[in-house]
Parts: sequence; C-alpha cells; structure tokens
Amino acid sequence: MPETLGFIGLGNMGEPIAANLLKAGYDLRAYNRTASKAAPLAKLGAKVVNHPAETAEPGGVVITMLADDRIVEEMSLPSGSFIEKLGRGGIHLSLSTISPVTSGRLAEHHAKHGVAYVASPVFGRPEAAAAQKLWVVSSGPGAAKQRVRPLQDAIGQGTFDFGDDAGAANVVKLCGNFLVASTVEALAEMLTLAEKNGVSQKAMAEMIGKFSPLHAGYANQIAHRKFDPPGFRLTLGLKDVRLIMETAESSNTPMPMGSLLRDRWVSALARGRGDLDWSAVALNAFEDAGLK
Amino acid sequence: MPETLGFIGLGNMGEPIAANLLKAGYDLRAYNRTASKAAPLAKLGAKVVNHPAETAEPGGVVITMLADDRIVEEMSLPSGSFIEKLGRGGIHLSLSTISPVTSGRLAEHHAKHGVAYVASPVFGRPEAAAAQKLWVVSSGPGAAKQRVRPLQDAIGQGTFDFGDDAGAANVVKLCGNFLVASTVEALAEMLTLAEKNGVSQKAMAEMIGKFSPLHAGYANQIAHRKFDPPGFRLTLGLKDVRLIMETAESSNTPMPMGSLLRDRWVSALARGRGDLDWSAVALNAFEDAGLK
Amino acid sequence: MPETLGFIGLGNMGEPIAANLLKAGYDLRAYNRTASKAAPLAKLGAKVVNHPAETAEPGGVVITMLADDRIVEEMSLPSGSFIEKLGRGGIHLSLSTISPVTSGRLAEHHAKHGVAYVASPVFGRPEAAAAQKLWVVSSGPGAAKQRVRPLQDAIGQGTFDFGDDAGAANVVKLCGNFLVASTVEALAEMLTLAEKNGVSQKAMAEMIGKFSPLHAGYANQIAHRKFDPPGFRLTLGLKDVRLIMETAESSNTPMPMGSLLRDRWVSALARGRGDLDWSAVALNAFEDAGLK
Amino acid sequence: MPETLGFIGLGNMGEPIAANLLKAGYDLRAYNRTASKAAPLAKLGAKVVNHPAETAEPGGVVITMLADDRIVEEMSLPSGSFIEKLGRGGIHLSLSTISPVTSGRLAEHHAKHGVAYVASPVFGRPEAAAAQKLWVVSSGPGAAKQRVRPLQDAIGQGTFDFGDDAGAANVVKLCGNFLVASTVEALAEMLTLAEKNGVSQKAMAEMIGKFSPLHAGYANQIAHRKFDPPGFRLTLGLKDVRLIMETAESSNTPMPMGSLLRDRWVSALARGRGDLDWSAVALNAFEDAGLK
Repeated sequence: MPETLGFIGLGNMGEPIAANLLKAGYDLRAYNRTASKAAPLAKLGAKVVNHPAETAEPGGVVITMLADDRIVEEMSLPSGSFIEKLGRGGIHLSLSTISPVTSGRLAEHHAKHGVAYVASPVFGRPEAAAAQKLWVVSSGPGAAKQRVRPLQDAIGQGTFDFGDDAGAANVVKLCGNFLVASTVEALAEMLTLAEKNGVSQKAMAEMIGKFSPLHAGYANQIAHRKFDPPGFRLTLGLKDVRLIMETAESSNTPMPMGSLLRDRWVSALARGRGDLDWSAVALNAFEDAGLK
Repeated sequence: MPETLGFIGLGNMGEPIAANLLKAGYDLRAYNRTASKAAPLAKLGAKVVNHPAETAEPGGVVITMLADDRIVEEMSLPSGSFIEKLGRGGIHLSLSTISPVTSGRLAEHHAKHGVAYVASPVFGRPEAAAAQKLWVVSSGPGAAKQRVRPLQDAIGQGTFDFGDDAGAANVVKLCGNFLVASTVEALAEMLTLAEKNGVSQKAMAEMIGKFSPLHAGYANQIAHRKFDPPGFRLTLGLKDVRLIMETAESSNTPMPMGSLLRDRWVSALARGRGDLDWSAVALNAFEDAGLK
Repeated sequence: MPETLGFIGLGNMGEPIAANLLKAGYDLRAYNRTASKAAPLAKLGAKVVNHPAETAEPGGVVITMLADDRIVEEMSLPSGSFIEKLGRGGIHLSLSTISPVTSGRLAEHHAKHGVAYVASPVFGRPEAAAAQKLWVVSSGPGAAKQRVRPLQDAIGQGTFDFGDDAGAANVVKLCGNFLVASTVEALAEMLTLAEKNGVSQKAMAEMIGKFSPLHAGYANQIAHRKFDPPGFRLTLGLKDVRLIMETAESSNTPMPMGSLLRDRWVSALARGRGDLDWSAVALNAFEDAGLK
Repeated sequence: MPETLGFIGLGNMGEPIAANLLKAGYDLRAYNRTASKAAPLAKLGAKVVNHPAETAEPGGVVITMLADDRIVEEMSLPSGSFIEKLGRGGIHLSLSTISPVTSGRLAEHHAKHGVAYVASPVFGRPEAAAAQKLWVVSSGPGAAKQRVRPLQDAIGQGTFDFGDDAGAANVVKLCGNFLVASTVEALAEMLTLAEKNGVSQKAMAEMIGKFSPLHAGYANQIAHRKFDPPGFRLTLGLKDVRLIMETAESSNTPMPMGSLLRDRWVSALARGRGDLDWSAVALNAFEDAGLK
C-alpha cells in the first residue's frame, strides 16, 4: 500500500508532478510558500499544510521541487525543518535543478539526522510533467533509490540511475541543460547567417522541423520572434547557465562554449529581456549582425 | 524517357549517388580524376570517359560532386570545359558543399553560355547516399530546378527548394553543417564537465542515445575515443567550418560560436589530428581540463 | 604627531608596506597569522601582537592586507574583532584586493560600530611596495579618506580618489588587473602567431621592450619560458580573474574577453600550473597551436 | 650622393613619409592614383609622374605605401609594371601593411626580374610619420636591406631587422597591430565594467593616462565617445584584424582573442560604424551591457 508523501513546492513543475502522484494513489501532505497556489491540488485530494515540516512523518518521504539552491537549503537546513521531522529512515527526494555542490552539502547534513538524500532532477517542461512524460535522473544511496523508484515511475516515462554520489544526478541535469542552451545559441547564429545571406529564417526553421523536434521548437520561436509569453523565462535560463558554469569552475573545467552562453544570457538580461522566453537570447545575435 | 547524364566526381559520396542514378534507369557518362576509381561504376553500366567535357552533351545535364570550391571552378570555368559543351539549354547540377559566393560566380559564368546553374548540396553520409536517404537542398532558376527534380528524387528521400538565388542552397547546407559542428563541441564540453564531476562519459552517452540519434553517435564516439578510422575526416570538417566562417565574414555576420569552432578545429589540426574523425576535436576540451 | 596604527597581514605585500609606515615614523601594532613571519618587522620596531583585535585602539586606524575576501571577513565581522575594538571614530583601511560587494558589506557592518571603511587597494608588486612606489586607489567617507591620506602617501607614489562608494576603489583595482591579465593573453597569442610564422619570440620580445615596460616584462618571461620561480603565482592570478568575473556577473556585465581569460586560467590550473608564474597561462596558446 | 627614388601611394601615411625623404635630400618621382593628391608633394620638389612604372629607373629603388594587398599586387605583378622597369639590381621597398603570404608571393615574382623585395611596414600614425617618428620593421635579402637603411632612417626613429624572410616584417607588424586592437577591446570591456559598477569612465580614463600613453588615448576616446572624426577608420582596423586572422589561419594558429576581435569589428561594421574611429568598436561592449 502506497505511503503518505510530503511535497514542498507547487510551482509550474511541482503542481503537475504532485497531481500525478495523487492519481497514482499516494496520499499527499503538500506545502507551498504562497498558500493560494495549493488550492488546485487540494481539490485533487491533497492535504495542504501550513509549514514545510508538517509535510513530513517520521521515516517517510518528502519531495521538494523548488526554484533554486538557496530555497532548498532554507527549507532543509535550519533546526525544526522537515528533515529533522523525517529522522531515521526518512528520505528527501530532491527534484529541483540545483548544483551538485549543494546536493553534497544536503546529503552530508541529512545523514546526521538519519535521512537519505536522493537527487532526482527531471527533464521536461510543465506539459511533459502533466502528461507523466518527464525523464528522471537519480543518484544517492542504493536502498533509498530503490524505495523512491515507484514515485519516479509515477511522474515520468523513464529513470536513469547515475550511482551513489549525491550530486551525480545534478551534474547530469546540468549537462542536459547545457546541450539545450547551446542549441539555442547555435540556432540563433545559424538563422542570423541565413538571413544575412538572403535565406528566409522561417523557411529554414520549417526545414529543421523535418529533422529534430527539439531544434524545430526553438528554431520556430526564433524565426517568428515568439518570445512572449515565455515557455521558459530567460531569467530561469540564466540561473541554469550560472549553475553550469559554477559547477565548471568548482571542478576546474574550462568551457568556452559555456562562457559564450553566459555572456549572451547576461547581455539579454542587461538589455531588459529577463521576462521573455529564454530563446530571446537570439536577439543578441541578430543585433550584433545589424538585423532589426 | 530518362536522359543521358554527365557525372563528375566519383568519391565517397559521388559514387553511391551515381550508382543510384544508374539504378533509376539513367545512362551515365562518368568522369573521375583518378580513373581507377571509376571501375565499380563502369561495372554498373556507366560509360567512363577520359575528360570532364566528354560527360556533357549539348543541352544536357552534368552533375558534379567534388571536394571543394577550387576544383569545381577548375572543372567549370576554363574554356573547353563541360559547360561550353553543354551550351544553351544545359544544366549544371552542383552537389558539392561549396560557398554561396562560388555558386554565384558559377551561375554568372554559366549564364553567358546559356547553361543554368542549380546548387543542390546534400545532407547525409556515404551510407545514406547508398541507401538513397540523402536530404537534398535546391536553388536556382525555376525551370531548371523542375527539370532536375526527378534526379534529386532518385538520390534522396526529400528535396527542399530555397528559391532562385544561386547560392541559397549552399547557405542552407552550411547552416546545417554549422549545427552539427556546434553539437560536436557542445558534447565535448558537456562530457568533459561530466567526467570532471565524477560522472561516467559512457553512461552519459548511453542516456543521450535514448533521446537523439544525432547526439548519440557523436557522444558515443567521444566517450569511447573512437576517432579512427574516421567517418568524416577532421580536415574535411575544418574545410566546412572555414566555408561557414568565410560566408559569415563576407556577409558581415559575427558568429562567436562559429569562431570558437574554428579555433577548436584549427587547434586539432595543429596538433596533428587531421586524419582522425572530426569528433576528435573533443580532445581539445579534454586536454584543456587536464583529462588524459 | 603620527598615530599608532594597527596592521594585519604581513605577507609579500604587507610586510614592505608596514616597513615603510615604520620608516615614516608611525608606531605599529602588527599581527600575522603565522607569527614567525612577523619577526623582520619586529626588528624594525613594530610591536607584534597575538590577536588581530590587539592591533586596534579605540578611535584608531587598522590597516589590513590579506589574501582574499573570506579572510578579510573572518578578521572583521565576528564579535570581538578589531572593528569592535576600534569603535566610534575608528577607521578600517583595507588594502586587500577584494570584491566591491565584500567592501560594501564591510562598510555596512562597520558603520554599525561607528567605524569608517576606506577601500584602498594598491597597484604594484612587492618590489614596488618596498620602494614606496605603489599607486594607491581610495574610496569611502570623505573625512576618513582625508585622515588616512598621509598613510597612503607613506606607502605609494600617488593616490587616486574615486569618491564615497565603499567598493569603487576595488572596482578600479579589478579593472586594472583585468587590463594586465588581458595583456598577458594577448602577448601569448601574439608570440604564438610570430613563432608559427617563423619569427623568433625572443626577437619579438626584445622589440616590444623598446616600447612598453609592462609588455616587455611579460613578453620576455613568455618568450624565454621563465615561469619559475613565480613573480606572481598563477593561482593568485586566477583569484583576481575570478573576482573580476564575479563583479561582472553581479553587475550584469558581459565580458567576452574576461570569459576567455577565465577559461585560460582555469585550464592552466587544471593542467597543474598553479604554482608557476601567472604568465605560464601562455602555455595554453602554445599547446593549442601545436608548439612544444 | 642620395639616389633618385620612386614613390607610389601618397595617402595619409605616404605623403608625410615622402616629404621626409625629400627633406633628407632625395629626389623623388612620385605617383598617386588620384593625381590631385600629389600636388602638395610637387610643391616640396617631387616630380609627379602619370604612371607607376615611370617612378622606376633601372637598378633603382621604388617605395610603395598602399591600402591593401590587392592594390600592391595590381601595381607590382602585371607585365609593364615598375618591377620590370627596375630590373636587375632594383629594390622594391614595401611599406604597406599586407600579409606575409603576399610578401612571399611578391618576393618570388620580383626575383625573376632581378628585383629584391624588402618588406618594411611601419608603426605610427600620420602625425608620427610627419614628425619622422615612425618605427620601421625590415626583412628581406641582406644587401638590399643594407642599401635601403638610410631611407628607413630618414623616415623613422629606429629600424628593427627581422632577417631574410620576405614576410617576417609583415608578421611583426600584424603582431603589433594585434596588441593594439586587443587593447582597445580590453579597455572597452574594462570601462563598461567600471560604469556598470558606478565608477566614472572619465575618471578611470584619466587615471590610466598617468600610466600609459597608448592606453590613455584610447581610454579617453572611449570614455568621451570621441569617435568622429576618425583618427583611424574602423574599416581599416577591420582590414588589419582580417589580415591577422588570415595569417593565423594559414599558419594553423588558433587565436581565441583574435577571433573575439574579429567578431567585434565585424559587428561594428554590420551596425553601420565603419566610418567612425576604430575605437567605436567599444560600443559593442556598451550595448551588450545595456548601457546607452
């Protein structure tokens, strides 16, 4: 019989993930900083609680899906947190995109309370989350990973296990995001080259659509300047690029393409495009080439 | 009834393409600088000739698939070339990966002899050519494009028309190659980041394989250091990168990612890796990060 | 009559600076974490103390010259620190190369204790410090700057005032270091280009020596591969480059040349060159070009 | 007794150089494509001729100071050129900033006519040329170099000999220009960083002025946005950057900083700034950072 789970963080990603866990038959104690956002989930049967620690029960599982490293730490590290409530035998299943360094720090902290830390970031946008089509990455202690596997199965279409290291799954997630971010910049430069040589960006994007769905989506957004409303905000993209580059630096890994991405994203932010879709970073390439 | 075609250039790509035209029922007069390489095609029924101009008949079609801009020009521009033999109503169907500037020059030259120039570079490796699975790009005068369409259909699985401009199809081809080259560098940096943070490159490549065949192939080659024998020689990759950047410069298009690619490929050449597969450019990222 | 000063940090730079203050007639209470390093200064008349807080007297001046932001904060922020001992009317004259953000934090903290913070990083190596040839930058509250001006005059050949903002002088220092670091990389690439084209690096360096002493020094070190013993360790150079780039990021300033410098320095560290002179970063350019 | 010299190219640089040769007592036969520009020199005593070949006398010396590689080749290579008129024992003293590859081609061509080629580009702007303050670089056959040395002395304050290789002096000149161009970009990024952190660009430029005249000039232009009228046109700067990068590529030398410079200059041109001073390339850095 499925256990009762804690769930902290009901944002664009957290909410559909939590909903899928409810559908899979789990009971949920859910917490969100902005309480009003928890209402839809309550309708689906979740018990909404007023303090993150109330999501936990001794020896249980709490899932977090939060915006950044700082918030995960603020939720997890102070005394009286849900980690202490979990105690011996508990598991913190951490879905957030955070740095492997933070995961390492959390794992070490949790271990002192007998709690296992499983890093488990996911690939996919809110639509994929809703459709239970996420791809899940997993790393941490073997027994804990085994216990949370049904939960991962309930929210995604497949899980990749990257071993015991607390931060490994985060590294994989950041690597994946790096590939996507570099694709956006490559498409931007490529479509700029096309237009500067008299080839229609839209025709180009249409052709790309025959080959690769990933490329097609971004190529279309860029070619048609569809940056608003954002599918994924530029500020969030910059957060990810920064996490990648922090991880690169802390591991003495030079990444010239990563550096280029950072410069591009920082420039887009400096030009006031933080609230557009992150593919609006393409405007840098257009402007550098004198395109309107 | 299919016409008799001329075909110049029976290299890794040219030979299987010519073979498919023979299979489709066309008669072929084929020429290759190194005559011995024409033997397999002769067995399939091609008439091998000793001078490029002999491939042509007045008002006919000659197809070229050659190594670089210079050779295409040497074959096409001198007096007595196959272009003059083609004369009024003839078509030069140019499959080579060359610069749009060269295509423009050829189109202008050919027009003086009444010959139409159709740029028609192809996407795909020799295996795809053999399997009639190339993707074909096409640009040039409308009537000429219409006349060569059955030939394009006989060698590929689809053709994209990019209008009248002589060089447009070349721009599209270079844009495509740019996307692929940038993917190689992105994978190299990403796999370096993984390994420097304790994540196996091979496990990473395996996961990527679930998502994208394009990425998977290169990720595997890089993770397993399979650079020899080359699928596509690094020197040829550098040729393409240079064509991209020449086109960028002649159109005043800054491409910082393109600049990075050029520096990486030039470095790989300077380090003596010209005969390896072009994914060996990944060794730069490894060495920069102190990996063995 | 000169006041009694506190001085914390007697490293390569701190010691000759402190010595010049003694020569100028100031009494000094000096502290260094490794006490033995304080011996030479004691001989010159400094009173060596065992705890940083003992360097301070109420309303006095304490000068710090420390390795990085973290150490300055550890010395300054905890309760019982020299700041609390200084109290109302005191001044913290901070010579260290740290980030403007840290200076801002220190200024805010100090203000609560009635202590004025004057950021005052210096340009010049230990030899220049010994010769009283440093160039000094200064920013902070006007009255405090006026009071410490004689001290700045005693250690340098000139002081530049950059206004009230706590971090302004640090920004100026980082900008200066950025110019020098970019010169090192420019020389490295330029000397590589020379050698790859048959021009002697040594002859080139000799010519450069006729024009610019700054360039000449580095050009010579690079051309003659004189990286050991280090004049300025590569790890310290990387520290500075990182401070520059942190400041760039926190102010949303894209710096592609800065990104290149960071990648180069990180690579040099990853290749095990952290203990060489920072001009050994040139080896990256050599190796990329296939030079031995 | 000084010989009669030929002089081709009376532009901003050529004219003051030719004037100094007249002052030094040489007779000059001068040619300029736009004949009207030769008038001032005629007043100083030069004999103005109507065809470049008329500048030459058998076994004499002809000096060229022209805009780019193409023009030097057009003047030198066709039959009937001044080179053929010079014939055995003649010297072509080539002051233009051209590529070492072009110099090599010229030297080879000239040798067939018994003419020695001495590459001798100069450092310095028109004001320095007028003041006889140029720095001269020299490479080519020993005897020829010896014969032209008095001419080099008459136009500059010092000459650096870089050996026998035809292109060596050009390499040195390009290396020097690379250093200057990289300084412009470094100052641009540095002043952007300053302003984004609340430090006045003008105050910064003023401080730099105390240390380095080279840096000071550009820092001032950038800080005060003094890009018009141009001291050195951006399009000419781009020409130099392109020569540097062509030389880098033809020698398999990766130059990431050079690539950055090219991207910046190309972008400045694409944005319509070709007629401003080349320090206007700084506007890229400003705009990337969201500065007005």
